[in-house]
Amino acid sequence: MKIITKISESRDEINVFRCVGKRIGFVPTMGYLHEGHLSLVKKCREENDIVVVSIFVNPTQFGAGEDFECYPKDLKKDAALLQGAGVDFLFTPSVEEMYPEGFSTAISVSGISDGLCGSSRPGHFDGVALVVTKLLNIIMPHKAYFGMKDYQQLQVIKRFVADLNMNTKIIGMPIIRETDGLALSSRNIYLNADERRSALCLSRSFALVCEALEGGETEVSEVKTIVENFIKDHPHTRIDYVQFVDPETLKPVKDLTKDFLLALAVYVGKARLIDNNIFKVM
Amino acid sequence: MKIITKISESRDEINVFRCVGKRIGFVPTMGYLHEGHLSLVKKCREENDIVVVSIFVNPTQFGAGEDFECYPKDLKKDAALLQGAGVDFLFTPSVEEMYPEGFSTAISVSGISDGLCGSSRPGHFDGVALVVTKLLNIIMPHKAYFGMKDYQQLQVIKRFVADLNMNTKIIGMPIIRETDGLALSSRNIYLNADERRSALCLSRSFALVCEALEGGETEVSEVKTIVENFIKDHPHTRIDYVQFVDPETLKPVKDLTKDFLLALAVYVGKARLIDNNIFKVM
Repeated sequence: MKIITKISESRDEINVFRCVGKRIGFVPTMGYLHEGHLSLVKKCREENDIVVVSIFVNPTQFGAGEDFECYPKDLKKDAALLQGAGVDFLFTPSVEEMYPEGFSTAISVSGISDGLCGSSRPGHFDGVALVVTKLLNIIMPHKAYFGMKDYQQLQVIKRFVADLNMNTKIIGMPIIRETDGLALSSRNIYLNADERRSALCLSRSFALVCEALEGGETEVSEVKTIVENFIKDHPHTRIDYVQFVDPETLKPVKDLTKDFLLALAVYVGKARLIDNNIFKVM
Repeated sequence: MKIITKISESRDEINVFRCVGKRIGFVPTMGYLHEGHLSLVKKCREENDIVVVSIFVNPTQFGAGEDFECYPKDLKKDAALLQGAGVDFLFTPSVEEMYPEGFSTAISVSGISDGLCGSSRPGHFDGVALVVTKLLNIIMPHKAYFGMKDYQQLQVIKRFVADLNMNTKIIGMPIIRETDGLALSSRNIYLNADERRSALCLSRSFALVCEALEGGETEVSEVKTIVENFIKDHPHTRIDYVQFVDPETLKPVKDLTKDFLLALAVYVGKARLIDNNIFKVM
């Protein structure tokens, strides 16, 4: 595995493979890798000739007071994991390399990015759109892989990649969970033992929703109250949002008679955790 | 010359040449072609294996009350001119093809796009950035050619192409003029005979600036007054702006002791004409 830090080097080293007919797959990450990331890398390895992973903690997608400064890092361990997973290139640019002096361009996606994390984290998806656009233009992959834990992010990325006619297929991959159900996240490192127990309230609330649906409940407000009360019963939790939305548009659903996505954002201690599940309604 | 109207078709027909090592050159236009456009096509033909020209009157770069609806069109004549100039592909998508229902993405460039036409035409350069990004992603050219009459547009395009790490080299080409000095523009068709005479005030004001500089004048306000009075002396004219700016940053210069760009926008009758010239100061 070759580690590349310069954009110009990536063009020389990686893009050349596109010209000779190789399929290039790409997994963009912010590092501090877990099995969720590695599931993307595994799929990428299966489907492509050349596998590129990036590690870049992108400042433009963090808001004031968020955890940009203390976002966990372990490049040595990450590099070893990626080497073991058969990655060909690891791209780890500096902030200065990605956003040199004079940088002036912004991208925004309306509609799909307005609610959920878009409401809680103003400018977050603009930052995501910007860095993903740059990374896709730098790496020029045929396919790029993203986890469905960041479900809204995936939908935003699919939107602007289509709108801007970018030449990469965006692949969404299922959420990977601990055996007790907690969705893997680099931010789980922020949890102490008590908080770790409380954090199960996110994934476990999905079972409550299934129960309610099986009991014939179709009112959003009823099921929302069940989930909110369940989360509040867990110490160290503070709800950011509990939203029942259309899986395509991410607009709130009026009732639970059609397929819907339950999207959760909950502070557990200082960690802001997200999780989601699509419920199929017969 | 093959005429293509669908994005998917352009991928099948044009991009394939990139894979087999051909150099692709691209000239995006809004049609109603004149010798200015053809000078871009000629250069593009000289420097590339495959020449693609687009004709698309892009609604997102026109403001309310501007001339989108009546922008001049003559696709038949344009196609004949391009055929004669050795163009390989003419891409003429519909508005629906470029902006299908659900389109939600915007691009903005701050700083360089703020003054001059950016002030007079709010949102104009956002629209330019959007359509050029889309066209460059659709055609995937090695080089794209733009005229320097739209000097600020060229600078904006260079800015976001660099910022977003797009894989196209942007080439600026000199302004082409009628023998009497009028800069070629599709909008010159709006001028009647009287207005056509008055329109010479733009290019002829450059000589006045040279005179003033040769006379040792270095005050912006003095030279600006000379130019403004000269333009006002011509019937049917209304000044949008007369600006002396840094050729790189497009910020107003404080005096005329270093190289500067004089940028003009003047309504002549109903036509809004622009012109510019870089003055080299010894």
